[in-house]
Amino acid sequence: AEKFDPAEHQHVRYNPLKGDWVLVSAHRMKRPWSGQEEKPPEEDIPRHDPKNPLCPRATRANGKVNPDYDSTFLFDNDFPALQPDAPDPGPSEHPLLQAASARGKCQVMCFHPWTDITLPLMSLAEIRTVIDRWAEITTDLGTNHRWVQVFENKGAVNGCSNPHPHCQVWASNFMPNEATAEDNNQKEYFSKHQSPMLVDYYNLEKEKRVRIVVENEDWLVVVPYWAVWPYETLVLPRRHVLRLPDLTSSERDALADITKRLLCKYDNLFEVSFPYSMGWHGAPTGDLTDAENSHWQLHAHYYPPLLRSATVKKFMVGFEMLAQAQRDLTAEQAAEKLRNLPELHYKIKRQ
Amino acid sequence: AEKFDPAEHQHVRYNPLKGDWVLVSAHRMKRPWSGQEEKPPEEDIPRHDPKNPLCPRATRANGKVNPDYDSTFLFDNDFPALQPDAPDPGPSEHPLLQAASARGKCQVMCFHPWTDITLPLMSLAEIRTVIDRWAEITTDLGTNHRWVQVFENKGAVNGCSNPHPHCQVWASNFMPNEATAEDNNQKEYFSKHQSPMLVDYYNLEKEKRVRIVVENEDWLVVVPYWAVWPYETLVLPRRHVLRLPDLTSSERDALADITKRLLCKYDNLFEVSFPYSMGWHGAPTGDLTDAENSHWQLHAHYYPPLLRSATVKKFMVGFEMLAQAQRDLTAEQAAEKLRNLPELHYKIKRQ
Ligand SMILES: O=P(O)(O)O[C@H]1O[C@H](CO)[C@@H](O)[C@H](O)[C@H]1O
Ligand SMILES: O=P(O)(O)O[C@H]1O[C@H](CO)[C@@H](O)[C@H](O)[C@H]1O
Repeated sequence: AEKFDPAEHQHVRYNPLKGDWVLVSAHRMKRPWSGQEEKPPEEDIPRHDPKNPLCPRATRANGKVNPDYDSTFLFDNDFPALQPDAPDPGPSEHPLLQAASARGKCQVMCFHPWTDITLPLMSLAEIRTVIDRWAEITTDLGTNHRWVQVFENKGAVNGCSNPHPHCQVWASNFMPNEATAEDNNQKEYFSKHQSPMLVDYYNLEKEKRVRIVVENEDWLVVVPYWAVWPYETLVLPRRHVLRLPDLTSSERDALADITKRLLCKYDNLFEVSFPYSMGWHGAPTGDLTDAENSHWQLHAHYYPPLLRSATVKKFMVGFEMLAQAQRDLTAEQAAEKLRNLPELHYKIKRQ
Repeated sequence: AEKFDPAEHQHVRYNPLKGDWVLVSAHRMKRPWSGQEEKPPEEDIPRHDPKNPLCPRATRANGKVNPDYDSTFLFDNDFPALQPDAPDPGPSEHPLLQAASARGKCQVMCFHPWTDITLPLMSLAEIRTVIDRWAEITTDLGTNHRWVQVFENKGAVNGCSNPHPHCQVWASNFMPNEATAEDNNQKEYFSKHQSPMLVDYYNLEKEKRVRIVVENEDWLVVVPYWAVWPYETLVLPRRHVLRLPDLTSSERDALADITKRLLCKYDNLFEVSFPYSMGWHGAPTGDLTDAENSHWQLHAHYYPPLLRSATVKKFMVGFEMLAQAQRDLTAEQAAEKLRNLPELHYKIKRQ
């Protein structure tokens, strides 16, 4: 029988965090693409646009005027999907028509006063400030919400509606689906192996060295074995850490370093400001803060949609929606590509 | 306290088929959209393009020449994600690095010889032929595959790389994630209620009448209570039916009728050829054909991405990817909008 080669032979891989599978068919990268081409992002974004509601001194939808901020700037989302005071739907009338209450808070945080800058082009000190704010918001909203989801949507192709560098925070009184799945799976692993899943995974990848993208003293970035998106990555701390606010000062500096290096590689891959959704997952908060959470390990996911070039993305449609996610290159191939890219941003090199 | 109004007050709804939740924040429909606008589909598609590999008499990537077909046309996908003969990855070396074998077959079926036609503009007899072919393929590939996924990706915005009307079939030796979840959840419901979940759901929606889009003697189309995509629908047979091949001749005619009416409404919503991914789910096949499957009910899902217009889609990014799906209008609002649309296709009315 032929010897199994993951880059040639389709197979499925298990995602132990989500508890599901991904179909890996790397031979499919060879097929030609005649489908939709995305518009590459605009190149001549103005540094300051008084009509952009995220800019310093601009007026927002609700009439409020932004301060003349010169670092980060946090404010309440003017169109929040989660509000603090929605009435409870009450008991459900039928097991197939179940509703439950959803309360929460949505905030927006600008990373920088300039619209024409992105995280990889910001200084380490500026990125460190963003990390400190992420930690603060998690503490603040975590006092009375079970889940505080910090996330960044980057790039118009990825649903971001404003080019100004910013992230969002949606805090909820309930554990969202992804959080519940990760909680259950990490708990099960912990009870079986007496060790947190992602701490073991960190050690495993440090040893194997085939899926590493960037690393430093305190952090490791890998394309996880079970990655779904073509250049998906997982950011893992060395130390067992439950939540963002628990990071030490030197771990935060190291996170700024690894973030800048990762995002420069991302931009260098197709020489384009790389679109993605990213977000942080840590142990639950609110009334779950003091529950048994030692199976949790803090981590960030990056989910970037591009597959072949700045204009060709992976569509998660059809078989993916109705049956199972499928990817066209192996995690090892993606990691190697990213690993071999320079860490100096292509825009800087060219000056 | 204020009275709960689902169209005003955010809440979560339970999806009993998948076993997860969706956040419904209908008040959010009011926010302005300044993000990406999609290109509407091309209007002047040639009826026959000798260079399009899906056309009659065209030459495909592998050098084969298509027959001069005048109805449907089935062939093997030239870039299959699943092939019959991939070697087994063998035992996994670590619980966090688990792989398993994936074998299968990928086929493509053209619906019609013309490139410039779509299902809603085809005759009932032509749609009936497509349904008969779906059933045949399910029987054929179902003899030695556990899961036969029939699906259609429609529209470039939805990842479809060829405008010629066609669907795909990916058959696998494993149960994909979505199939496993639906199997488990239907099984659990059945053991609790001694009745198939989707048969009960059919009766419930027939009685409530608030989420119905179209109906006839044998079929019901609803925006399910737990819909995630703005205009998502679920197609349900009246009778308890396990799989497509089990449909009677009159049920197939009725399915052609309801499909044409649904798809005309979809196209009429934004007066555009409506993009979507759709697919059929029925009881497992292969070595699972004779297993206890009475908890299963045949159904089709339609997952269309458009939200506000022909050019503004819902982006399932950020919070959706990292935490939980969120929708901007209630299932009842979407159903009412679709229900009130004419069933005559807008292109025909205007002639
Ligand atoms: O096979 P196609 O139409 O070229 O490709 C499309 O459908 C496939 C199956 O749903 C997906 O994996 C691809 O991402 C999508 O672009
Ligand atoms: O809030 P934004 O950036 O306008 O909107 C974007 O992010 C949200 C949260 O991930 C999503 O629900 C929207 O679909 C997306 O377009």
